Amino acid sequence: MTIAVTLPSEDKVEYWCSMLRDLMPDWDIAPMAAVEDPASVEYAVVWRPATGAMKRFVNLKAIVSLGAGIDHVLTDGELPRGVPIIRTVGADLTQRMKEYVVLHVLRHHRALPEMQANEAKVVWEQIVVPPATGRRVGVMGLGNLGAVAAQALANLGFRTVGWSRGPKEVAGVTTYAGAGEFGAFLEGTEILVCLLPLTDATQGILNADTFNRLPRGASIVNAARGPHLVDRDLLAALDAGQIGGATLDVFHIEPLPEDHPFWGHPKITVTPHVASLIDAPTGSRIVATNIRAFDEHGTVPDLADAGRGY
Amino acid sequence: MTIAVTLPSEDKVEYWCSMLRDLMPDWDIAPMAAVEDPASVEYAVVWRPATGAMKRFVNLKAIVSLGAGIDHVLTDGELPRGVPIIRTVGADLTQRMKEYVVLHVLRHHRALPEMQANEAKVVWEQIVVPPATGRRVGVMGLGNLGAVAAQALANLGFRTVGWSRGPKEVAGVTTYAGAGEFGAFLEGTEILVCLLPLTDATQGILNADTFNRLPRGASIVNAARGPHLVDRDLLAALDAGQIGGATLDVFHIEPLPEDHPFWGHPKITVTPHVASLIDAPTGSRIVATNIRAFDEHGTVPDLADAGRGY
Repeated sequence: MTIAVTLPSEDKVEYWCSMLRDLMPDWDIAPMAAVEDPASVEYAVVWRPATGAMKRFVNLKAIVSLGAGIDHVLTDGELPRGVPIIRTVGADLTQRMKEYVVLHVLRHHRALPEMQANEAKVVWEQIVVPPATGRRVGVMGLGNLGAVAAQALANLGFRTVGWSRGPKEVAGVTTYAGAGEFGAFLEGTEILVCLLPLTDATQGILNADTFNRLPRGASIVNAARGPHLVDRDLLAALDAGQIGGATLDVFHIEPLPEDHPFWGHPKITVTPHVASLIDAPTGSRIVATNIRAFDEHGTVPDLADAGRGY
Repeated sequence: MTIAVTLPSEDKVEYWCSMLRDLMPDWDIAPMAAVEDPASVEYAVVWRPATGAMKRFVNLKAIVSLGAGIDHVLTDGELPRGVPIIRTVGADLTQRMKEYVVLHVLRHHRALPEMQANEAKVVWEQIVVPPATGRRVGVMGLGNLGAVAAQALANLGFRTVGWSRGPKEVAGVTTYAGAGEFGAFLEGTEILVCLLPLTDATQGILNADTFNRLPRGASIVNAARGPHLVDRDLLAALDAGQIGGATLDVFHIEPLPEDHPFWGHPKITVTPHVASLIDAPTGSRIVATNIRAFDEHGTVPDLADAGRGY
């Protein structure tokens, strides 16, 4: 009855272990690196586990991803086959993502980056933008996070459209589905938000072709995963003026390397993967609830589909 | 049947006149400075009129303020007595103010100024903030603009409180009224938004005493009028750390003078009075509708109370 915990930061491993121990006193909670009897491990709680880290757990019942996505688990080419993967989602994460998306969409909508550049030069210039009711915003990905974010944008008055792999209905949002409707979704979308899961089909979807279908000067907000974006295509589109600005929370390599051209770019805002942080006190309660429910029922609502990739 | 138009910028006067002429072809629309027969003027459409500009209009039926506030009209010590003042409000203005308030409250809530300071130094540091459900935001002023802004904050999940002169009810918002409840309103309010009308009672209300009743490190958003704020008290509170940051859209003198200490202050964001701009195409439709209605019925819903000051 061991739960093995791994995250890239050792401090965080200890913190999560102590939280889970408080919540699950009947279980043996151990840092994955300190597990002495691999056969005792029934659950692995992971964020960006090392390749091969889990294959020795022959009695593994489920893997718990410390995030809404499971891409960081599936990159392990030696992942034990057929072991269910539980996503960590919940009201707290959805709330945080909604806040991030609304903040950064409003920021682009209201031309705040341009006004702050003026401010730095002590220039008083009123930039007039349309009200949100005259602005089309598109959300790619209508899962837990995307649907709530899109609805919040619609509630604020934005003409909100959404796009997902299969058809979805979201109140107040005009939805498009599949590759066939991607062009119609992009057409007229002035602020494009990416909240897609990272899969083979969505990797690199924020590319030159996508940018060219948007109206000139459109803005990009990527709060999903770094590899959704083709970095050099964004830089070229910003240089050309096809994209007017971008806010990026996720990157191919995190932390974003100090010499990456995104740092200090006048048209790019870099945030350090904070759109929807899972803090240990909240996250550990969700993880504990999910593990207990899975252990009892053999499934949970937040089970991912490894074949589908999310 | 003349409508006289005045704004500080001559270009804007011409633009507003041309818009109003299209909408009101039966009326004579003239720049106030070009009026030849003062007795013909029945309506004055004004933004920051010069002192004494209107006293010669002996047949004036109403003054139309090109804004939600009328303080810029009442500063005219020679204002003809008893002439009704019509405010210019409407869905468009309310929408814009809601956007501004939500944007800047979220920006402080999510510690974006601190993260952008880190970004400028190429520092990747995740600042963890509570979700909005754990953050108390207070809106001073619950008129057209304040009530809608407060409700939008509550809809996003903030613990939202509101304060006004007299009792008001706003769905999802805990409301306080009058001087007696001001302290209770401020207590625990981490982000304070000012949307009050400017009157003798509210001038200088954002002062050291108010700041000291907020939790240490609270943020201020002033989207009402410059004289609500005691500038030197804010600078002192920022220096002392009692206030953590401020976003200011309005100032004692506008444009904000180049040598004012607010420019370039690391804890202050200056925006150039854009929270709720009235653009001429939208505003002229509201003005035309109000003048026609007033001319027919002798009153309109958006009539101000000069005695009360708003």
